[in-house]
Amino acid sequence: MALLNYGNPIRFDFGAITHLPDGLVRLGVRRPLLVTDRGVSASGLVDRLLATLPADRRATVAIYDDTPGNPTENAVHDALAIYQAHDCDGVIGLGGGSSIDLGKAVALLAKCPSPLAQYDPLQGGNKLVKDVAPMVAIPTTAGTGSEASIGFLISMNDGRKMTFANPRFLPALSICDPELTLSLPARLTAATGMDAITHCIEGVLAPGGNAPADGIGLDGLWRGWRNLPRAVADGSDRDARWQMMMAATEGALAFTKGLGAVHSMSHAAGHVESLHLHHGTLNAVILPTVLRFNEAGSEEAYARLRQAMGLAEGADIARAVEAMNERLGIPKGLASLGVTESMIDELVPHAVVDLSTRTNPRPVDAGDFGRLFREAM
Amino acid sequence: MALLNYGNPIRFDFGAITHLPDGLVRLGVRRPLLVTDRGVSASGLVDRLLATLPADRRATVAIYDDTPGNPTENAVHDALAIYQAHDCDGVIGLGGGSSIDLGKAVALLAKCPSPLAQYDPLQGGNKLVKDVAPMVAIPTTAGTGSEASIGFLISMNDGRKMTFANPRFLPALSICDPELTLSLPARLTAATGMDAITHCIEGVLAPGGNAPADGIGLDGLWRGWRNLPRAVADGSDRDARWQMMMAATEGALAFTKGLGAVHSMSHAAGHVESLHLHHGTLNAVILPTVLRFNEAGSEEAYARLRQAMGLAEGADIARAVEAMNERLGIPKGLASLGVTESMIDELVPHAVVDLSTRTNPRPVDAGDFGRLFREAM
Repeated sequence: MALLNYGNPIRFDFGAITHLPDGLVRLGVRRPLLVTDRGVSASGLVDRLLATLPADRRATVAIYDDTPGNPTENAVHDALAIYQAHDCDGVIGLGGGSSIDLGKAVALLAKCPSPLAQYDPLQGGNKLVKDVAPMVAIPTTAGTGSEASIGFLISMNDGRKMTFANPRFLPALSICDPELTLSLPARLTAATGMDAITHCIEGVLAPGGNAPADGIGLDGLWRGWRNLPRAVADGSDRDARWQMMMAATEGALAFTKGLGAVHSMSHAAGHVESLHLHHGTLNAVILPTVLRFNEAGSEEAYARLRQAMGLAEGADIARAVEAMNERLGIPKGLASLGVTESMIDELVPHAVVDLSTRTNPRPVDAGDFGRLFREAM
Repeated sequence: MALLNYGNPIRFDFGAITHLPDGLVRLGVRRPLLVTDRGVSASGLVDRLLATLPADRRATVAIYDDTPGNPTENAVHDALAIYQAHDCDGVIGLGGGSSIDLGKAVALLAKCPSPLAQYDPLQGGNKLVKDVAPMVAIPTTAGTGSEASIGFLISMNDGRKMTFANPRFLPALSICDPELTLSLPARLTAATGMDAITHCIEGVLAPGGNAPADGIGLDGLWRGWRNLPRAVADGSDRDARWQMMMAATEGALAFTKGLGAVHSMSHAAGHVESLHLHHGTLNAVILPTVLRFNEAGSEEAYARLRQAMGLAEGADIARAVEAMNERLGIPKGLASLGVTESMIDELVPHAVVDLSTRTNPRPVDAGDFGRLFREAM
């Protein structure tokens, strides 16, 4: 079984979940709070996870399973209340990016005072992050890569979607067991898989001289692009599931370089609470438009992306992504997701100030974002 | 300037050497032992390094500049004596792999008792490694990647060439400044560059499910293969030097998966003290033979190697390496290096027990090694 060690230790393979009891002991966690959502809970994965623990340890696990689709500041405080009421001493995040991100926020506020907003890295908040509770991240989707990332996103009560980023937010241990993704429905497999692919692509295109991250991103793209259609067509394809989970982890390792305009736009559209848009779906829908915008000046990187995707020299990458989206049953444009032209003026400022905008390979301003949103409709 | 963080922090770019004073302060090193060799010392690089330190700190640096071509156990003890006589509290390894490896051995014996042989990882020696002195690694060649590796090699007094490997042997800080390689002669540029390329190739081919390391190795191979002829042809080509230094670092990050039969044979031939063979040259000369042996069963990985090297589908990789060696002025076979047929029986057992043999993609026994040595003559 592979132990990946790129920032944090990641146990990666079928059966990796059996490392949980030992992992908790090593981290000194005796009374964990398990953060998850209703879907994961209903699927039986919580029971499977508890079954890996010795009988006397199972009773010490407190559970919060109300993680919303996009984790909110209120949900963080609900989970934190359970953490404190049960005198917990660590967090297990089990689920998609939402549960793991929410778990990260709880691990922070377990050790540092509220409010959460003061830890905004853009406002110098990282110097206030003195300690976090130990956390084990266990993804059940292959997409966000939160298990290998220093970041997490929370929808704040004041309406902002805030990105927190600090090396301390890397889980103390991550367990990537592709077994846990075998029952993921095709639609979610497709959307989260395109999230992973977007991370790989934007990571590779971000500037900065971190060549190892380029290599990891290209490898993740190579795996993701070949295997996502297989995983969507047959969720029980164990090799395709392994490859997709690896592509997701590699996506996060690649975006240590930063992300780009796809994520700026996707985060902005994610603000529209009434639409409840899925982050991976948004990325998939927006990706072709931004790929068309970014090519000038990144020709060499685009040639490498094509190679990883098995495309011919000079092939239209944006068109290839559109074809992939269609094949995977992903909606065709933002309009089909419920975004309207009248919302664009409100979305643009969010995209401009988004952390990801700083690492887009081509400078992108408010005017550009307006045009890009219109093109992506 | 990139800060790579894959196991240990690596300051990577032109001008990175200016991070030395700050790095020593962070590590709490006030009286470092600088481990280097006569060539580096004569080239003026030691003075350049000392010039980065405040005047009052320069006098606190003790210097050992007698590192042999292949670091020996005796040399470790000579350097250790200086470390102790000057009450040093840390090590700076400046040079090729030999100086950095010797520095690692001194950092170990500064904190743990002699003899060195007891720390042999194959004999359970790692449980004795309780602590090491803080070390800064500063490569002046682009090859070994010792600055990013958990290993070091020492020629022991009893004739063995011993590999030590422990996460604690990762330098606490590495500084990769391509500026320091600009004056490296063409012959050494070629040999160390082929060392880096061999690390990338053997890392990718080693089994184990560490996909990020595959991606890093392929990226390093892509950079190394394109840029080594440029760096050899014109040592002052700054971009080629940057790319080669990155390929070397990536090679080491890739071989966290393990190495293969090229290194088993190269280490074995390195035993022949009378010949004083250069490790990188040996790797370059042996690589084509092992590439022919290993292809069966690794077809997909070979296809990816070809792509990284810009070769046509199905092209003969071994032949391409031979052509590269010729272009770089590297000797054609082991015979031309002074190895004779009569030595082979003595080399084979060393290759069989070498740590790298365990991670060759195809099982390889004594009979195979005999044949491989003959082919490589």
